[in-house]
Amino acid sequence: MTQDELKQLVGKAAVDFIEDGMTVGLGTGSTVKYMVDALGEKVKKQGINIVGVSTSKRTAEQATALGIEIKDVDEVDHIDLTIDGADQIDKNFQGIKGGGAAHLWEKIVAINSNKNMWIVDESKMADELGSFPLPLEVIPYGSKQLFKRLEAKGYHPEFRMANGKHVLTDSDNFVIDLHMGHISEPQELAKDLDSMTGIVEHGLFLDLVNTVIVGREGGPQILKAR
Amino acid sequence: MTQDELKQLVGKAAVDFIEDGMTVGLGTGSTVKYMVDALGEKVKKQGINIVGVSTSKRTAEQATALGIEIKDVDEVDHIDLTIDGADQIDKNFQGIKGGGAAHLWEKIVAINSNKNMWIVDESKMADELGSFPLPLEVIPYGSKQLFKRLEAKGYHPEFRMANGKHVLTDSDNFVIDLHMGHISEPQELAKDLDSMTGIVEHGLFLDLVNTVIVGREGGPQILKAR
Repeated sequence: MTQDELKQLVGKAAVDFIEDGMTVGLGTGSTVKYMVDALGEKVKKQGINIVGVSTSKRTAEQATALGIEIKDVDEVDHIDLTIDGADQIDKNFQGIKGGGAAHLWEKIVAINSNKNMWIVDESKMADELGSFPLPLEVIPYGSKQLFKRLEAKGYHPEFRMANGKHVLTDSDNFVIDLHMGHISEPQELAKDLDSMTGIVEHGLFLDLVNTVIVGREGGPQILKAR
Repeated sequence: MTQDELKQLVGKAAVDFIEDGMTVGLGTGSTVKYMVDALGEKVKKQGINIVGVSTSKRTAEQATALGIEIKDVDEVDHIDLTIDGADQIDKNFQGIKGGGAAHLWEKIVAINSNKNMWIVDESKMADELGSFPLPLEVIPYGSKQLFKRLEAKGYHPEFRMANGKHVLTDSDNFVIDLHMGHISEPQELAKDLDSMTGIVEHGLFLDLVNTVIVGREGGPQILKAR
């Protein structure tokens, strides 16, 4: 199976967890795109009532086009379940997200959800985090000075660019990716990044996910994280 | 003397610390406004070369109009001295800033400065922080959910509004003021706020200031903080 086929299968498997009447956080990314497609079909076929909470403008547009009602995180009382992708998941179910530059809104939705589920193809599972670059959403003002600080700490920063311009997040901030290779102490690194002025949010998602669905050749594998 | 006269005097006193060739961070607020006026006069009279680094759009506009060259924090190699106001300073020279909704850019400039000076009238000096509400700059997306979390922690949040609309910072974020009354452990509070998703920056300025000039009836008092 191709990576795309694995993503499609886990996207479909995740939709089985969505029940009538639920408020569901909808993540961002290529795997989530398949899940939202499958959810659109389920809503149409079964006529169930779902409210979706978006984590990015692009997911909101896709869901709306499929007839899924979308609300802002501030318009709902609670979120039953958020289904999102992840860029890397370690053996303790800690994750890196933000490859799609949407990790700030994704984290805001995740921390406001009763349950979180990540859907990934098997290439995202790792013993340790860090081979996937860790994204930071940063305030443009002073970002070059921040870059120097990150460099001095040995965090190997790189501005995320496209066509010679800074990639902008949905909140109009810049993205810096940290090419650290290994992140042996994610909690310690999170605290350090939290304390740095100019970093709006880092892509470490710690102690957050409850269930992971991994797309494997033999079929989707459902892992209970916490 | 009125509070305004005290502010004017400390503004003038601060300018004595600015020497030819310096790169100077220029804060934001009513006391700083007097300082920038006095600096404009000094530059004109003495013909000295100063580069100003702005902490807000309004200070940048004022300085430029007075003939002071203004650069972005990312355009300078270093900042020799930043002169800014403060909303409250405790006996350990820890401060609260952000009454003017500019504390994010102010903190970015402050942490990139070799030395920091705060200029205040005597009403700003207190034994303990907290009677002045602590400002938070927050991401609009999810800010109502963040508000509920702050409320649940007993931090007494209040959105800062003007004419029925959210006050916007120079980075187009919202402001939430925490009416805590007493902040007995500023370092612990800072860590907690740092860890909360959606807070871009809080107004606690800890271990940052080197010199404080206090406007008192008997004349400006210069205090060495660290």
